[in-house]
Amino acid sequence: MKMIGITMGDPAGVGPEIVVKALADASEFKEKYVVYGAADIMEKYNAQLGLGCSFCEIEDVSEYKEGCINVIDPVHLTMDQYQIGALSAKCGDAAYQYIARSIEDALAGKIEAVVTGPLNKEALHMGGHNYDGHTEIFATLTGTKDYAMMFYGPLKIMHVSTHCSLREACDRATRERVLTCIRLMNTALKKTGMEHPYLAVAGLNPHAGEHGLFGTEEIDEIIPAVEDAKKEGINVTGPIPPDTVFSKALSGIYDGVIAMYHDQGHIAAKLQHMSDCVNCTIGLPIIRTSVDHGTAFDIAGQGIADGTNMKTSMHVAEEFMGSK
Amino acid sequence: MKMIGITMGDPAGVGPEIVVKALADASEFKEKYVVYGAADIMEKYNAQLGLGCSFCEIEDVSEYKEGCINVIDPVHLTMDQYQIGALSAKCGDAAYQYIARSIEDALAGKIEAVVTGPLNKEALHMGGHNYDGHTEIFATLTGTKDYAMMFYGPLKIMHVSTHCSLREACDRATRERVLTCIRLMNTALKKTGMEHPYLAVAGLNPHAGEHGLFGTEEIDEIIPAVEDAKKEGINVTGPIPPDTVFSKALSGIYDGVIAMYHDQGHIAAKLQHMSDCVNCTIGLPIIRTSVDHGTAFDIAGQGIADGTNMKTSMHVAEEFMGSK
Repeated sequence: MKMIGITMGDPAGVGPEIVVKALADASEFKEKYVVYGAADIMEKYNAQLGLGCSFCEIEDVSEYKEGCINVIDPVHLTMDQYQIGALSAKCGDAAYQYIARSIEDALAGKIEAVVTGPLNKEALHMGGHNYDGHTEIFATLTGTKDYAMMFYGPLKIMHVSTHCSLREACDRATRERVLTCIRLMNTALKKTGMEHPYLAVAGLNPHAGEHGLFGTEEIDEIIPAVEDAKKEGINVTGPIPPDTVFSKALSGIYDGVIAMYHDQGHIAAKLQHMSDCVNCTIGLPIIRTSVDHGTAFDIAGQGIADGTNMKTSMHVAEEFMGSK
Repeated sequence: MKMIGITMGDPAGVGPEIVVKALADASEFKEKYVVYGAADIMEKYNAQLGLGCSFCEIEDVSEYKEGCINVIDPVHLTMDQYQIGALSAKCGDAAYQYIARSIEDALAGKIEAVVTGPLNKEALHMGGHNYDGHTEIFATLTGTKDYAMMFYGPLKIMHVSTHCSLREACDRATRERVLTCIRLMNTALKKTGMEHPYLAVAGLNPHAGEHGLFGTEEIDEIIPAVEDAKKEGINVTGPIPPDTVFSKALSGIYDGVIAMYHDQGHIAAKLQHMSDCVNCTIGLPIIRTSVDHGTAFDIAGQGIADGTNMKTSMHVAEEFMGSK
C-alpha cells in the first residue's frame, strides 16, 4: 500500500467533519491515509456522530500506525482558539500550513498524492497568504509553470483558464496554452489507465465560430493547436461547438473535453451530480485532487455535512496512482 | 378552439416528417393546426409510416376542414423539383415562403401562434434570403426591435445575445439590453400562467465577477439593470454565478434564468433532455415556438426522425396562448 495525504482544510469549516466521515470506514480505500490537520476538532465530530474512530498524532509519515486515523499537525491550533463557522486569520493560516506541510512531504516522496479539504479564501488572506486558492498554492510551492484545473467525474473537463474575466479568458485561449492543456489532459487520463484517450477541444465562440462568422479564435488559435497535438500523436478533435460537446462526451463519444474558460466547463460539470465531481490540478509533480465545495460555514459544526465528495476525491487520487 | 400555424421547414429535411408524426394524433392537442408547406412530401411520410392521415389543401385559414391535415401552400414546390436530403435554393426559398405566409396570417389575426419546423441556413441563403435564421425573419417581417431567444423546457432560459463572438457578447451585455430581457421574460412567463415569476440574472464573468475581481460588467451593467427591474416591481435577483444558477433553477429556486450569452444558456439547456427543449422568440407580436434541431439532411427520407420535439413545441405554443 502507498501513502496519501489529506489536508483537513479550514478547521472552522466542514473540512474536519467530512474527513472523519470519509475515513471512518478505511476498508473502502486501497491506500493508507494520513491527515494534515488537528485531531481535537476531528475527535469532536467523531464523538458527535458516534463514528468510533481513534486518532494517533504522529510527527512524520514514517511513524504511521495501523488501526487509527493518523494526524500530522504542524500548527497545533486547538478548538479553544477559534469558533466553528467563523472566518479567522488563525484558521486561514492553519489551513495553509496543513497544505504546505503536505506538499513538502509529497515532494520528499513520503506521500504519493494530496487530497485537499475545503479552505476559505477570505480566511486564507486574513492569515497572510495571498493566494486565489489551492491551485495557486500548489503551483507556487512546487515551482510549476504549466498546470491546469480539471474536473474528474462523469464528465472529465480541463480548463484553459479559470479565475479571470470572460474578456481576459478570450485572450488566454492561445495556441500555446490550448496545446499545453491538450498535452496535460492526455497525460493525466493515461495515468488513470486509458491507453489512448480521445479528447475534444471545445470552441470559444458560439457554434465554434461558424467558420469565422462569430469570432476568429478558432481559426487563429484553436485549430492550429489541435493540429499541433495531432502531429504529436495525440487522439484529439475540435473545435466542437461548446453547446454540444459536453452531451457528446457524456454519451461516451469523447473521453475528455478541453474547455476554453471557467464557466464553459463549470456550467456543464455542475449540472451533473455534484458529489461525483472532483477538482484536480494537472501538471504538478504531485497528484492533487480536491473536494469541489467550500467550507460551508453556515452548516459547520452541526454534523450534517456530506462526506461523499471527499470520498470520491480520495478514490480519484487512487485512480491517478494506478491503484488496483 | 383557436388556430395555430405550423411551418413545415425545408422540404428536403426532416421537417415534413416530424410535422406529420406530430399531427397524426390530433387528440393530443387543444387547438386546431394548419400547416404552411407542401402536401405531397408529407403524404410520402404518411404512406411510408402508415400513419393514416389525410390532407386537405386550403387557400385560406377560413376554409379549415375537420378530420384532415390542413395545408396552405403558397409556393407549390413539388417533390420532383428537389432531392430529399440535399441543399437547394428552391427548398430554401420555399421554407422562407411558408414562414412569410404564416407571419402574414398571424399579423392578420387568422392564426394565434406559429410553430416552426427546421430550416437550413445555407439553403435559405441560396434561396436569396440572407437571414441568420427564423428569429431574424420573424423580427424583420413583424418590425420588432426588442426581442430575445428563450428556451422553454425543464429550464427556462432567455438569452441577452446569441449569434455573435464571445467578445462581442461581452459588449452586448449592457444595462439597457439586460433590462429589456428581464422585462421580456417576466411578461412571457406570466403568459404561461405564472403570477409572479421569480427570475435570476446570471453573471457574465466567473463567480459573477467576484466583486469586480474578475471583470466589472456585473457592477457597471448587470446590477443596475436588476435594480431598475426591481423598481418596476419585477421579482428578480442577480447576478448569480453562472456555474450554479442553472442547477438552482432546476431545483425550483428560480422560475427562469437570463443568460448573458449563447453558450452560457445553451450548454445548460442542451445537457437537459433535448426533446423537451423548445426554442421561443419573445417580444414579437406573434407567439412563436420552434423545434430546437436542424434539418438533419443525413437522416431525411428514412422515416426515423423523432417527432417529439415538434409535439413539445406545439404544446408550448398552447401554453403561451393560455390553452386549458
